Order: sequence, then C-alpha cells, then structure tokens
Amino acid sequence: MTSRGQFITFEGGEGVGKSTQITRAADRLKARGLDVMVTREPGGTPMAEAIRELLLAPRDEAVHEMTELLLVFAARAQHLHGRILPALAQGTWVLCDRFTDATFAYQGAGRGLSQQRIAALEQLVQEDVRPDHVIVLDAPVATGMARAARRGELDRFEQETVAFFERIRQCYLERARALPARYHLVDAGQALDDVSEDVYRILSQLLP
Amino acid sequence: MTSRGQFITFEGGEGVGKSTQITRAADRLKARGLDVMVTREPGGTPMAEAIRELLLAPRDEAVHEMTELLLVFAARAQHLHGRILPALAQGTWVLCDRFTDATFAYQGAGRGLSQQRIAALEQLVQEDVRPDHVIVLDAPVATGMARAARRGELDRFEQETVAFFERIRQCYLERARALPARYHLVDAGQALDDVSEDVYRILSQLLP
Repeated sequence: MTSRGQFITFEGGEGVGKSTQITRAADRLKARGLDVMVTREPGGTPMAEAIRELLLAPRDEAVHEMTELLLVFAARAQHLHGRILPALAQGTWVLCDRFTDATFAYQGAGRGLSQQRIAALEQLVQEDVRPDHVIVLDAPVATGMARAARRGELDRFEQETVAFFERIRQCYLERARALPARYHLVDAGQALDDVSEDVYRILSQLLP
Repeated sequence: MTSRGQFITFEGGEGVGKSTQITRAADRLKARGLDVMVTREPGGTPMAEAIRELLLAPRDEAVHEMTELLLVFAARAQHLHGRILPALAQGTWVLCDRFTDATFAYQGAGRGLSQQRIAALEQLVQEDVRPDHVIVLDAPVATGMARAARRGELDRFEQETVAFFERIRQCYLERARALPARYHLVDAGQALDDVSEDVYRILSQLLP
C-alpha cells in the first residue's frame, strides 16, 4: 500500500525566492527517491491558469475585492480536485508555490477583506484539506521588492505600495507563530544556498 | 430624491424566450418614461463577461462543480457591485437575464451541488441583496430544447440531457411556489405576444 504524499506549500511576499527554493527542494527530494510534483497557485491546471490570467491582467475596470477572492478560490478548487488530491493519494509529494495562506495574506491583510469571509470560503471549498507543512520564506519588504523589480515588469499585484507588502509580511509571521507545528519560518534574507539548506533541513525531518 | 429602481430578474430553462421577452419588457417600460438597464448573468461587465467565456467554453479538462459555482459567483459579485447596485441607486430599473435562481437551478438541481452550499455563497457574496421580483418563464423541456437547437450550435450547458433540464424546470417551479410575493410564473409555451402581455401585466403593477 502506498502512503499518502506530503502536501507542502511555500509562502512569502514578492521576491523572497519561492520559485528558486521550491525547484531546489524538489530536486533534493527526488534525489532521495520520492515522487515529487511542483505546482503553483493560482494556477496548476489549464482552467486554473486561465483564471490566474484573468486575475493578473492589468485592466481598466476596477476588480471588486469579492470577485478577486472568488476567482482565487475557483482556481484553487480546480487545482485541488484536479491535481493536488489525486497526486497525494498516489503517494506523490506536492510542493505548491502559494496556497490559502496567500489569500489570508494578500486579499485579507493586504486588501482588507475580512478574515472570517476568507475562512468561510476556505472551509466551503477545501472542507478539511490543509497543507501538511507550510514553509514561510521571510525577508524584509525592501529586500523582496528590489529583487522583484530586477526581474522586469511589475504585474497588478507588484504595483502595490510598501505598506501593502508590510501587512502581508506581518500576516505570514502571525500565522506562522500561531501554529508552529505546521508553519516553518525561514530567513530568506540569507544567501540563496543558506536558505536552501534551511528549507531542506525542515523537509528532511518529514522523510519516511 | 430619486427612488431606488426595481431589480427584476428573468429566469427559465433553455429556449423559453428570455432574451426576447426581456427586450420587449424593457421597451415597454422605457415607453412609460422609466430608466431601464438590461443586463445578463453570467456577464454584465467586461471582467464578468470574461468569466462567462471561461464558463461556457467547451474544454478537455473536467471542470469541478465547485470551480463552476465559484466562477458564477465571481462574475455575479463583479456585476452586482460594478453595475446593478449603482444603477438601482440612481433610480434605474434593472432587468437581468438570469441571477442566483439560475445557480440554484443549474448548479444545484442540475448538477447536484448542495443547495446549502449555494445558499452559503449567496449570503456571503450578496449579503441581503435579492431581486425585487423574479419572472419565471416556464415551458415544457421539449419545447424549449427544440427552440434552442434551432438557434444553432449548442454550448456546454446546452449539451446536457433532458433529465438535467427537467430538474432545472422543477427547481424553478418549486422556488416560484415557495415565495409567490416575489416570484411570478409565466406560461412561456404560449405565442410570444401572449407571453409578452403576461409579463407586462406583472410589471405594470410595479410602476410608480
């Protein structure tokens, strides 16, 4: 009998290095013989990616905060039922670039949507599914934004103010402190290789 | 002081003549000197129309029922806050081709999604906003499907079975019977002009 895979999400603000770290973590876990799937939110399936594009495209029309929240959860429902849960059931480890913590951080703390409304949608859409472990890559906002700016054009989210990203950072820190058994805080202000070592130290404790 | 406009929705299965009747009703109300806005769900703003296209496009990927439900409400939130509520506040009457009753009928009765989940989303997204009046155009399923087929290519919803549309019809009938002060049942199996007269008789009782 195959045991269920671990569902591990990577969270953090702009420019903290999630994509790099998730790729490196996946490579090291694969080298240990695990089946690993790397995916991202919003997105992860063609339908969910189409929803992601709707969300990220700059547009003239003001997008109502409830519209944004529902689109995020629509993409998540598709991703969860179409890819994540089937992979976990087959014993594959799923490493996901952002999940519902990002909704609490970006739409909740960032845009001021009530945390209760987000929690109500989380329960409605996910029922009891939560990540097994959440890696929170934490760096000062200025550090992250400088890295994001060097990557090129800023999308709709990246055009927000420093205060917006400061609220997001604080939200992640509070969530990590509230549930230390599930959340693992990593200092993403370090050199990339040191961050990778910290991440792998956490993951290696979860190995079978 | 301008009084708030009436929010009137037109509901019914495929081919019952909603578009025709809504246009005729709007013309007659305008002739009585009212400001009238005609709109439709899902859609009604560029963002909501883009969500509508995501919903209606035939695709290889199976769309999870929760994804579909959240997309419907995402388009609705955008439509409601971006167009419907501002128009009503200015005294404009809003005639809307489908609204949340269609979600209870199509996603609920049609696809089997729990009515409680739909009601939970209705309350979360709309809070206390409901249509002032709902015109339910009712015709036997065979009549409606024959008309829809004559219009040309069937979209994803129109490819469903007769049993699916029968469940939708029964859901509309039950909702109309449960709340007769808000719901007005019209026999859409009649000649178009007779249907229009029935609709206008209902609307004329709401005139200031």
